[in-house]
Amino acid sequence: MIQTDRNAPVGIFDSGVGGLTVAREIMRQIPEERIVYFGDTARVPYGSKSRDTILRYSRQIVRFLQSQGVKAIVIACNTASAYALDEVAAETDIPVIGVINAGARTAVAATRNGRIGVIGTEATVGSGIYTKVMQEMKPDIQVIGKACPLFVPLVEEGLLHDSVTDEIASRYLSVLKNKYIDTLVLGCTHYPLLRSTVRRIMGEDVVLVNPAYETAIELRDLLKKSGMNRNPEEAFEGEQYQFFVSDLAEKFRDFATSILPNEVKETRQIEIENY
Amino acid sequence: MIQTDRNAPVGIFDSGVGGLTVAREIMRQIPEERIVYFGDTARVPYGSKSRDTILRYSRQIVRFLQSQGVKAIVIACNTASAYALDEVAAETDIPVIGVINAGARTAVAATRNGRIGVIGTEATVGSGIYTKVMQEMKPDIQVIGKACPLFVPLVEEGLLHDSVTDEIASRYLSVLKNKYIDTLVLGCTHYPLLRSTVRRIMGEDVVLVNPAYETAIELRDLLKKSGMNRNPEEAFEGEQYQFFVSDLAEKFRDFATSILPNEVKETRQIEIENY
Repeated sequence: MIQTDRNAPVGIFDSGVGGLTVAREIMRQIPEERIVYFGDTARVPYGSKSRDTILRYSRQIVRFLQSQGVKAIVIACNTASAYALDEVAAETDIPVIGVINAGARTAVAATRNGRIGVIGTEATVGSGIYTKVMQEMKPDIQVIGKACPLFVPLVEEGLLHDSVTDEIASRYLSVLKNKYIDTLVLGCTHYPLLRSTVRRIMGEDVVLVNPAYETAIELRDLLKKSGMNRNPEEAFEGEQYQFFVSDLAEKFRDFATSILPNEVKETRQIEIENY
Repeated sequence: MIQTDRNAPVGIFDSGVGGLTVAREIMRQIPEERIVYFGDTARVPYGSKSRDTILRYSRQIVRFLQSQGVKAIVIACNTASAYALDEVAAETDIPVIGVINAGARTAVAATRNGRIGVIGTEATVGSGIYTKVMQEMKPDIQVIGKACPLFVPLVEEGLLHDSVTDEIASRYLSVLKNKYIDTLVLGCTHYPLLRSTVRRIMGEDVVLVNPAYETAIELRDLLKKSGMNRNPEEAFEGEQYQFFVSDLAEKFRDFATSILPNEVKETRQIEIENY
């Protein structure tokens, strides 16, 4: 049996900055935990890549995070969760969780008419994973997926409240409105930043599910149940939150500072291909 | 002195599919030459990445193309030309050319009022390379650069003729219209696909420069001058045009077939990180 260091950090990774919305939720809900975050900014986006490539990249990142001594890993990216979670979890001797189970569970609990929409990248929607997971939870659930490939570039350009984003969102979401869904999963970590646009188009009666919130709860429960939760009284060396990227460390740091509760002092760039 | 095989293929690379507009021009103008094309579809886009990362990626690709026995290399990507051409050309024992010199030369020859616009990715425009190269050719040229980061995703989504693309293009180009440029360089290999939109917004009096055309001429002259041009009578083994990518070979093949004069029969996927 492997002795886990309860004082060790949790590893979180994403294709880039989107996973910071998950990191933020973890910081809020389990403020005693330490975090090592990795954003694959050299190879972003993942949403238009193949399963094999996403799996290869995810394995490299898991090896990097393990080299940093993490006690558990959160795949804070829907696409990587869709394509790499099962393999990576089976190969790794520490717990690995994704964002999809948490999002699916919340949506299944929330729906009243059994019709759930899922928006995400081409890869996530194309994988059919949300449908599979939700129908395993409740077989008669109907899931309508819709890929929204322009949402990530629009968010990255900062067009959060813009007529162009409204127009693109109206086109993407019209198919979901026509199917009378009552619950919609924001199945990409960038999409919570478009919540108000999506809310306005879908109307007040549709429940919007952000998997980040439930993922943080899942992590908290997992650490507690397995006796791996950190004792806040115990001392540790270095920063509580550490950030690594594969490119453009400074740009990442500025973005991270803008969405996290505290200033990000340092982001280090590594060559992820070497792991 | 290294003996060059005149029968060897020319290597062409790009971050993805955009460079096919350059390959197409080379096929038209020097139909006797053989081509090995590499598209870095696993790591696309380059336009939002750092100089160091683009240089590292370009070096890997040059090593791959040399392993295929190419006699010369065309960097068919403005961003990689901007950040990697000088280093890669100095390190490599075969000729390497980019697309920027050709585009700059055409624009400087075309302008009457000395005011030239350049549109491209954030990385290309941020590098200032077009300004530098054009002012070396003619010191009193005024260059106004404008990054158009949403053009690539819009093209990749197929929104070539769409009200959203019109709106985004109007915003990007308004700053250039206000500066009374008479010549505009399409400084990204995706942009020629938006030529009609750009034409409508800029008006008939502005010359639109596509560097692909002049790059093909530069390659033709270089091969001829150095006695490296292929003898069309000589036989060779295998396909005249070979295509390699780092991801999603089938999707690439379909796109390539849609823009090249002949059907692309096969595209092979390689692990570019191993080079």
